[in-house]
Amino acid sequence: MMDWKKMKGIVPTIVQEENTGKVLMLAYSSKKSLAKALREMKGVYYSRSRKRLWVKGESSGNAQKLKKAFADCDNDSLLFVVKQKGSACHTGGKTCFFKEIALKQSRLESKGAE
Amino acid sequence: MMDWKKMKGIVPTIVQEENTGKVLMLAYSSKKSLAKALREMKGVYYSRSRKRLWVKGESSGNAQKLKKAFADCDNDSLLFVVKQKGSACHTGGKTCFFKEIALKQSRLESKGAE
Repeated sequence: MMDWKKMKGIVPTIVQEENTGKVLMLAYSSKKSLAKALREMKGVYYSRSRKRLWVKGESSGNAQKLKKAFADCDNDSLLFVVKQKGSACHTGGKTCFFKEIALKQSRLESKGAE
Repeated sequence: MMDWKKMKGIVPTIVQEENTGKVLMLAYSSKKSLAKALREMKGVYYSRSRKRLWVKGESSGNAQKLKKAFADCDNDSLLFVVKQKGSACHTGGKTCFFKEIALKQSRLESKGAE
């Protein structure tokens, strides 16, 4: 069902917290990890660095209950809606997306009045 | 600042709607598209299929105003918080993640009572 070929067997998987709507992390799913996630209703992913199945929280205790899962229109990415125990990020932050990048609005409009 | 090497010059970019918290789509950013997005405060991405910069809404009219941008802890993915004009998905749906996947809770616990 998913397009596993596009990225050589994995698809990016957005993880969103159910009750807050916060985007917690971006992980990757393999065919095997997705099957296990759906079956066990848990945050289970494929770790690119360790090259193996990764049950989120297996060492940290910060596990995720999988509440809903969605495929996108092209079947090349996933969205997991989860209940997060503790923090999602290995730095201890609730979410991995805590580094805000400054927007640099163009000043062209206000330059050279007249 | 971003880790452009891990995925050969692009990073996955989660796009979330500002007022609803809905995850709209997963796109990809290149160094160039990210610079343009931050400068012009717009949903600008790198199209993998067309292999070029892609200003969201350039043909459909469904443009995005970039309100906030975040890098994740590993600098290998981005989160864009946007104001979406019309629908994000090319199918006409508000979000690209409209295909819910059934969870298959294991029945092991209830099998073979005793």
